[in-house]
Amino acid sequence: MEHTIRTAKSDEIINITDTIKDDVRSSEIKDGIVTVFVPHTTAGVTMNENADTDVVYDILTTLRKVFPKDPSHRHAEGNSHAHIKASIMGSSCSVIIENGELKLGTWQGIYFCEFDGPRVRKFYTKII
Amino acid sequence: MEHTIRTAKSDEIINITDTIKDDVRSSEIKDGIVTVFVPHTTAGVTMNENADTDVVYDILTTLRKVFPKDPSHRHAEGNSHAHIKASIMGSSCSVIIENGELKLGTWQGIYFCEFDGPRVRKFYTKII
Amino acid sequence: MEHTIRTAKSDEIINITDTIKDDVRSSEIKDGIVTVFVPHTTAGVTMNENADTDVVYDILTTLRKVFPKDPSHRHAEGNSHAHIKASIMGSSCSVIIENGELKLGTWQGIYFCEFDGPRVRKFYTKII
Repeated sequence: MEHTIRTAKSDEIINITDTIKDDVRSSEIKDGIVTVFVPHTTAGVTMNENADTDVVYDILTTLRKVFPKDPSHRHAEGNSHAHIKASIMGSSCSVIIENGELKLGTWQGIYFCEFDGPRVRKFYTKII
Repeated sequence: MEHTIRTAKSDEIINITDTIKDDVRSSEIKDGIVTVFVPHTTAGVTMNENADTDVVYDILTTLRKVFPKDPSHRHAEGNSHAHIKASIMGSSCSVIIENGELKLGTWQGIYFCEFDGPRVRKFYTKII
Repeated sequence: MEHTIRTAKSDEIINITDTIKDDVRSSEIKDGIVTVFVPHTTAGVTMNENADTDVVYDILTTLRKVFPKDPSHRHAEGNSHAHIKASIMGSSCSVIIENGELKLGTWQGIYFCEFDGPRVRKFYTKII
């Protein structure tokens, strides 16, 4: 399935777990794998803590520190730091489905990672 | 299948290849994909060299250097560096199965990555 | 399917999207997932921009800066920096197939990442 998300900041990590859960339920597939795929090159997807939002804040600030905007980058759009972060977090993730539910850990959520917003973005899910 | 692993250090990379191979054999599936999934937010999974254990030592020390404990992190548990490393290594990996065997490279092993131990941890496998 | 690629530099990011597209077409599978797998421990696979080659240049130079060759590394082959980059980029990626085509974003390409070349390398595809 295809989903649209509107990001609000230059970089931002947004919880999309409920959307993935809804897709799994409406598929009526009880047992398999769901793949979440981000069709962008300055955005990605990751799994991390769903409880304390300070965790995603710390992830974003650390990524900014380790992979800053760099005047020596050649890419004329000036967003190579965002391309790098997208590759490091990854464009897809896979979660196991059992008894019709996502087999996530207690503290795990699935997050859309915006690294060059704000923009209108998409992500896809595929259940097998 | 579900597996339990007891980690012994604050950060540690543990070879779990044999467990994945056993799961593939006992599934009797000859052809497909096995997904390894880690249901934690301060641990992950990666593939790397299975021969010289100095490689995983170097990976751990480098990750400590690049993503250190940082007093500016907001998350009160003080383990944001571990959350970051988990997202960077990833929560899942997929390996091809052919003729009932994992289609790994000669030097490739599958590794559980502990970044906030010691703890009792889990990982799952799903074969499709 | 198995593919061979000859890399020409110590580190290099090579567009392999057309090969993956050919595998998907020749499989005649209209709907599913293709997994691309790199069976090496100093090479990986990622997805990123297919238009401006400066992007992959910037990714390579940034990875060199953040994860340099380090004399404190123990691994005697002296290529631990390449092992680290391989784990960070990852050994596999998954793309959705719909109507017999890869469901990639407009700017997305699939890239083989050489971090310790030049070498003759392999990558595998598996369609489910």
